[in-house]
Amino acid sequence: MSLELVSQTKSFGGWHKQYNHQSSALGVTMRFAIYLPPQAQSGEKVPVVYWLSGLTCTDENFMQKAGAQRVAAELGIAIVAPDTSPRGDNVANDEGYDLGQGAGFYVNATEAPWSEHYRMYDYIVEELPSLIEATFPVSSKRAIAGHSMGGHGALMISLRNPGRYTSVSAFSPISNPVSCPWGRKAFTAYLGSDESSWQQYDTTVLLRNNPVHLPTRVDQGLADDFLAEQLQPEKLAEAAAESGYPLQLEQHEGYDHSYYFIASFIEDQLRFHQRYLLAE
Amino acid sequence: MSLELVSQTKSFGGWHKQYNHQSSALGVTMRFAIYLPPQAQSGEKVPVVYWLSGLTCTDENFMQKAGAQRVAAELGIAIVAPDTSPRGDNVANDEGYDLGQGAGFYVNATEAPWSEHYRMYDYIVEELPSLIEATFPVSSKRAIAGHSMGGHGALMISLRNPGRYTSVSAFSPISNPVSCPWGRKAFTAYLGSDESSWQQYDTTVLLRNNPVHLPTRVDQGLADDFLAEQLQPEKLAEAAAESGYPLQLEQHEGYDHSYYFIASFIEDQLRFHQRYLLAE
Repeated sequence: MSLELVSQTKSFGGWHKQYNHQSSALGVTMRFAIYLPPQAQSGEKVPVVYWLSGLTCTDENFMQKAGAQRVAAELGIAIVAPDTSPRGDNVANDEGYDLGQGAGFYVNATEAPWSEHYRMYDYIVEELPSLIEATFPVSSKRAIAGHSMGGHGALMISLRNPGRYTSVSAFSPISNPVSCPWGRKAFTAYLGSDESSWQQYDTTVLLRNNPVHLPTRVDQGLADDFLAEQLQPEKLAEAAAESGYPLQLEQHEGYDHSYYFIASFIEDQLRFHQRYLLAE
Repeated sequence: MSLELVSQTKSFGGWHKQYNHQSSALGVTMRFAIYLPPQAQSGEKVPVVYWLSGLTCTDENFMQKAGAQRVAAELGIAIVAPDTSPRGDNVANDEGYDLGQGAGFYVNATEAPWSEHYRMYDYIVEELPSLIEATFPVSSKRAIAGHSMGGHGALMISLRNPGRYTSVSAFSPISNPVSCPWGRKAFTAYLGSDESSWQQYDTTVLLRNNPVHLPTRVDQGLADDFLAEQLQPEKLAEAAAESGYPLQLEQHEGYDHSYYFIASFIEDQLRFHQRYLLAE
């Protein structure tokens, strides 16, 4: 599990670093970014928020646009931002922005040609945290968050792995992928046409049936162009109400799907996670 | 002077908007972005910081990456981010990233083919503020700031226009363009080979001879790859020391030329401007 440092620069007194590594889950070289707050320099082990990005993103979008480092530096939290899919000339792809490279949907693909490399679920749940915890001065306290496709990923992964994360949050998540165009297209390609195999990756389905309750916050802009067709937070809210799940859904007038929205509320999400990450 | 709204979204309780307008100074359609803080919604006239970006940038880089809106919302300051050159199929260009479109250098070009459209000095000093002040709920209190090529632009413009700005700041400015490769290439193209015509656009030259002293802050990362060859802040510091100019030069170990650096210190620069913008 050797790491190649791609770039590093100081940010809010801590360090932003990018690394390449050979992923065994994905069978390709993957890049990720990590923000290490100032507290990590003194050897203190800091908790980690894993950030899963949306369609077309790499490790860079969140790190460059969310303004999270300021808050992470204050709170003493590391942030890890992986890429959103395997990449490379030998990796299956599609002309659409919403399938293939940049659109891994955080599932383990079972259908050819995707099944060879598209195992983002295993990468995010197992391989990446093992690597991070073996390499950097971080504790095993983890939270998970994400945006849009990554919001789906964060919620779905937290629901499937009780005990692994202290808390979960999402901006503008794809709440019910089995019933929206983005999700149906991706799941058909990656998982095949038998929809019963899709349920394990659907946040609304999982949340309705989940016996383990995790602190969960979702922020949604009400001027988001994808709100009604793709995101459907009302599905999530209904499922949470039915099952008594502790979902804190914050809706924001005038905000859209962009990083201007994320930047406006990332401090609230990080402070939300802090309550659980820093508890003993 | 009609404006076409290109996009708008809420950001930290205020509004981020992009507009197109026909520029008489440049003879092309120009796009700019404005951040209007929450205070502007109640009709209060807010002061404005003009932000001049660096090579290759548009109105978007600063707005997406600097995290300035949070502080501007708190302080009640609007921010205007223009593009860095005229653009379009009929506008002269060059294959290099450091000349032509995206590289206007904030001068009025006198040499063909550039002189037809490249009049960024007039655009920034006269046309854009007139448009902004006629259109938005802003006062005539102005500050100016920028990064790299835009740091040169902000400092140079403030020095040439006493009384027009309350204060000026820059990140990683090209301090002495007449003596660095970026500046010499651009000035040769835009202004011709007679170097005497370059002096009017050189911050170090202007600062050494300027009788009017303006509050001036410069932040420079010491891990900046362009530091020695292109930026040369020591030239600015020497000229300021010689002439008694009130230059506050802040140097930062470990920070590079990127927006990770700008984001880390934009709050300090905006609070610096606030002291002068909000004084009566």
